[in-house]
Amino acid sequence: MAFDLPSYMEERRKWVDEALDRCLPPPTAYPSPIHEAMRYSVFGGGKRLRPILILAATEAMGCDDRRALPLATAMELIHTYSLVHDDLPAMDDSDYRRGQLSCHKKFGEAIAILTGDALLTLAFSVVSREAFAHSLEDQRLAWIIREIAQAAGIGGMVGGQTADILSQNKEVDASVLLYVHEHKTGALIRACLRLGGIIGKADPSTLETLTDYGEKIGLAFQIGDDILDVEGEEKHVGKELRKDEAEGKITYPRLLGLDYSKRELRRLVEEATQAISSLPESRTQPLRAIAEHIIQRRN
Amino acid sequence: MAFDLPSYMEERRKWVDEALDRCLPPPTAYPSPIHEAMRYSVFGGGKRLRPILILAATEAMGCDDRRALPLATAMELIHTYSLVHDDLPAMDDSDYRRGQLSCHKKFGEAIAILTGDALLTLAFSVVSREAFAHSLEDQRLAWIIREIAQAAGIGGMVGGQTADILSQNKEVDASVLLYVHEHKTGALIRACLRLGGIIGKADPSTLETLTDYGEKIGLAFQIGDDILDVEGEEKHVGKELRKDEAEGKITYPRLLGLDYSKRELRRLVEEATQAISSLPESRTQPLRAIAEHIIQRRN
Repeated sequence: MAFDLPSYMEERRKWVDEALDRCLPPPTAYPSPIHEAMRYSVFGGGKRLRPILILAATEAMGCDDRRALPLATAMELIHTYSLVHDDLPAMDDSDYRRGQLSCHKKFGEAIAILTGDALLTLAFSVVSREAFAHSLEDQRLAWIIREIAQAAGIGGMVGGQTADILSQNKEVDASVLLYVHEHKTGALIRACLRLGGIIGKADPSTLETLTDYGEKIGLAFQIGDDILDVEGEEKHVGKELRKDEAEGKITYPRLLGLDYSKRELRRLVEEATQAISSLPESRTQPLRAIAEHIIQRRN
Repeated sequence: MAFDLPSYMEERRKWVDEALDRCLPPPTAYPSPIHEAMRYSVFGGGKRLRPILILAATEAMGCDDRRALPLATAMELIHTYSLVHDDLPAMDDSDYRRGQLSCHKKFGEAIAILTGDALLTLAFSVVSREAFAHSLEDQRLAWIIREIAQAAGIGGMVGGQTADILSQNKEVDASVLLYVHEHKTGALIRACLRLGGIIGKADPSTLETLTDYGEKIGLAFQIGDDILDVEGEEKHVGKELRKDEAEGKITYPRLLGLDYSKRELRRLVEEATQAISSLPESRTQPLRAIAEHIIQRRN
């Protein structure tokens, strides 16, 4: 029987949403506007791709994927914080996100900055909670926090966003484009796969396999995003499209052409699937289906 | 012989600066503007009060204070990130910080937002480094990260800054003032004392003692800041003064009067000193001298 990705995603999304709900303070807590803004941003219709990748990688290790829920929660909080800050007027200046007003349009700039700060900090709080920390062997918590901080920080996502901002309306070459994609989106997705491997006690070669899949899927996902910005329909994507070009953003289609971008997307997805072929087939159904889904997605 | 606080502070400041220098990427790293901005903000003349409090609390436990340097570094990174974000136009809109241009005036708003994000993330990276994590017993790393995230996040510093922003130009009562002071500045200073206790394996009652000192010193320090904003000389303080009143900020002198504020400051410092009188006198010289210093400081 074919693997039912939509049902799989739906169930995991529910788990992740419940875990996010548990870790966020109630919206009525003082001072309430930021608590409302945190929930508004976290529950703004995200696909939960990153947390689901963590769960899928944990399953690929033959491990109960629910054990990884705190990691899934933390990475989604970090992803959300990055979107809230990216949308700010001084950054990408986006009024909409997933079909609703962006955080700063809804709550004001000051609250949006603080909301991002609060979500980022909460991510580390969630990972260090007692029950989860006690479930980890030896020095694995330190390793996990290093992976998350490395992927999210200046050597990862923040570095990529910085390069993206600095390259707007400038002549840049493919190496800058690759740096932006690998860091801005790629680093976090790569880390999601590695976190699943670390919690599942992957040996070095298996961790390398998951990392390889993560790097390829991460880049493929971003190229898919670039293509959607050119070809997508606004009602599906839920944000303003053709913005990249209007803002002079560097994208795959702009720098290397639409046809090349589509071929590259397909090649990366094939390579990602190939990379995990060494793992037991019965455990990698979600990872394989997610890879395939990245080619077909419309939002 | 009397304890020589200036020499003590000077030596610790040097240790902290060296540790900060080691953890920050070189200013030439790609993309360079943010690496410059991170160093510009971290080495902008901070007094290093928070890291020195961690070292002093560690010493009060009879523990080699250099062991706590990664914690000292992390808390100074978090303090610096909070200043960079607080100075942003959408927040306190400050053009100067410690006598030099604030980060966003020097590097632009986008880089300043990202610089704060990078510094906050780096703090967790520093605390989870292998050598330090290995030096800690059992579940102490998880505890440390919880303390830091709790103090810096929505239940601490970010909550305080939010309440501060929301209360500007509004009629507020003393309970809001206390909430802002206890959270915006107090939470981080309190955590510094606790971190010294945790790394020094304080028993619950000693940890309570250090917490008590930290809460009182933290509030005293902020009241001192409020008083300096009214009475200080700009050349010593290094930032625009009389700003609090112009911006309709809630402060101790404004809400409760200058005389009351000074008495309250002195009372808190005395109580803080009293709190640690149960600890061996030979090890608490720095903590006692720092408390006394808070009454006399001019910047």
